[in-house]
Amino acid sequence: MSTNHTLKVSLGERSYPITIGRNLLRGGFGLADFVAGPDCLVVSNETVAPLYLDALLANLAGKQCTSVALADGEVHKTVATMHGILDKLVETGANRDTTLIALGGGVVGDITGFAAACYMRGVAFIQVPTTLLAQVDSSVGGKTGVNHPGGKNLIGAFHQPQIVLIDTDTLSTLPERELKAGLAEVIKYGAICDLGFFGWLEQNMQLLLDKDPDALAFAIRRSCELKAEIVAADERESGRRAILNFGHTFGHAIENCLGYGEWLHGEAVAAGMLMAAELSAMDREDINRLSALLNAAGLPTAPPPLRAEQWMQTMGLDKKVQAKQLRFVLLRELGDAYITAEYDATRLDQLTGAAA
Amino acid sequence: MSTNHTLKVSLGERSYPITIGRNLLRGGFGLADFVAGPDCLVVSNETVAPLYLDALLANLAGKQCTSVALADGEVHKTVATMHGILDKLVETGANRDTTLIALGGGVVGDITGFAAACYMRGVAFIQVPTTLLAQVDSSVGGKTGVNHPGGKNLIGAFHQPQIVLIDTDTLSTLPERELKAGLAEVIKYGAICDLGFFGWLEQNMQLLLDKDPDALAFAIRRSCELKAEIVAADERESGRRAILNFGHTFGHAIENCLGYGEWLHGEAVAAGMLMAAELSAMDREDINRLSALLNAAGLPTAPPPLRAEQWMQTMGLDKKVQAKQLRFVLLRELGDAYITAEYDATRLDQLTGAAA
Repeated sequence: MSTNHTLKVSLGERSYPITIGRNLLRGGFGLADFVAGPDCLVVSNETVAPLYLDALLANLAGKQCTSVALADGEVHKTVATMHGILDKLVETGANRDTTLIALGGGVVGDITGFAAACYMRGVAFIQVPTTLLAQVDSSVGGKTGVNHPGGKNLIGAFHQPQIVLIDTDTLSTLPERELKAGLAEVIKYGAICDLGFFGWLEQNMQLLLDKDPDALAFAIRRSCELKAEIVAADERESGRRAILNFGHTFGHAIENCLGYGEWLHGEAVAAGMLMAAELSAMDREDINRLSALLNAAGLPTAPPPLRAEQWMQTMGLDKKVQAKQLRFVLLRELGDAYITAEYDATRLDQLTGAAA
Repeated sequence: MSTNHTLKVSLGERSYPITIGRNLLRGGFGLADFVAGPDCLVVSNETVAPLYLDALLANLAGKQCTSVALADGEVHKTVATMHGILDKLVETGANRDTTLIALGGGVVGDITGFAAACYMRGVAFIQVPTTLLAQVDSSVGGKTGVNHPGGKNLIGAFHQPQIVLIDTDTLSTLPERELKAGLAEVIKYGAICDLGFFGWLEQNMQLLLDKDPDALAFAIRRSCELKAEIVAADERESGRRAILNFGHTFGHAIENCLGYGEWLHGEAVAAGMLMAAELSAMDREDINRLSALLNAAGLPTAPPPLRAEQWMQTMGLDKKVQAKQLRFVLLRELGDAYITAEYDATRLDQLTGAAA
């Protein structure tokens, strides 16, 4: 028998549990209890549906369920795909008390959450993340949305789920490249706010890469704890929540400029974190530790060759820009991130090739 | 010199003023004070922009302004049009501190508000309504959205503006048919919650049709007061706010089934209100008074010929449906509305032709 762990994201009347454990989907978790109305629409993709859809539906006894499988991949994270979900909702006569359930990785979760935010001005939804990246990051905190050709996640909404159900057994089918991409966000938590966790990751990276269940369970739980705490304190990112974007200003630019899906989100964030570390006034030793850990996780530590104009144009649409001024999440030292508009512009030019 | 009137929509940190007066656009209202960031995008349409865009821009001194003019009409109230606004925002490098300004009628306001809700997960917006319908109803309360081929306003968000600026002088250019359509929503307020106002409308309808400035100003102010009160008590329509939808369940079905824009929204609501009154257990005398007032305003009091299946399919997607059960806003008597799932099903069948 498995031991489940339940955390709470404390957001007043929008609070919700994150339940983490093994054998949740196949073991009969009472997910129907989190579906208020008579019916739900399960949104998955063509890769994940064959693996876990039946198991999920078995947990929804008594509910009228329809499902839809999206094409797989970041390139499909568009308004058009979101509209397809809305079409399906209309077609099945979904009402304001219908619940959407996202079964899949970050792309499925983000699109489904945004569709739930928009349909009838907001219906309930549930996150059942099946990739490491979605389990440790994107399924928690209510950021939903889709990409615009001009920038990552430019279109979306804050919309919190009813529950995040993390069955770590789903990682057994996760491709190695995606596992590593998820580790980038795990490493991020250590780097921005938990030096002890960073040290643990340095010690246990090989176990994680080997998919050791206990190591994965701990890494997921700690990541979710840290994220839940930050989100609870600043739901709509008016301040501290922005530190969760460490590496993302550069990372989003990489994803956008290469074409969505060329580099996985976690890969782009890995290279982006090292760029942000290089932009920080931080000891070289700390930078080297971050670089070594990313390396150990099999993640890129340098960006692809982009032109300086590409960097600047894409970063100019970053959501943290204020009064036309770029802002970055930087580190004072490992485990201590902050957001600032004050940075070494010359160093930025070096990093983006503008100084060449 | 004109006397402005300012009401407040009390929603905690989302509170905002409604400023009503003559000569606001041409008289130099300090709208720039409500634009927090350095820039804004004014969204209008091809009809309204030539009339009022320059006057509006003159009130935004010191701000960097771009504008876009949508095609005019309800048929363009789509996700595609909304996406066009997002494209423009990306193209102009708009950031999270950019403000959108809706200059036009309900369609412009609803689409612009929804674009503001979605861009970067939410940027500020301002309503400058130029039709009677938008001034008394759609610009106040934060309901934004677009139509789906399957139903009216099925896609959207609750997103409150920074201010609603109502320059009643803009009504001088409003076509008669649109003026009458706006009067439908004015009459609605009397019917659902203010019998005294209903009586005033019975006395002053001709003045309103003649565009008497004082009569219009009073009708707009009273409508906004009533709406602001109801919205403040129930922002996201979990209860009483639903009474603002009196006539709208039938009305939306009419608009959708005839094709958006065939009947104006206010015309469909007028016919819908009389159907809802007929479905209510209300004195015949009250029904006759409502019918007479709608007639006096030059509004339809009977629906177009729709088939029973058309009514039922479209109304099945009404946002008030709960547990697959239709709910209607009915009147106990003139001035006293309530929402209920209990209604005379036989009478509904008669009204929709299902009993034929």
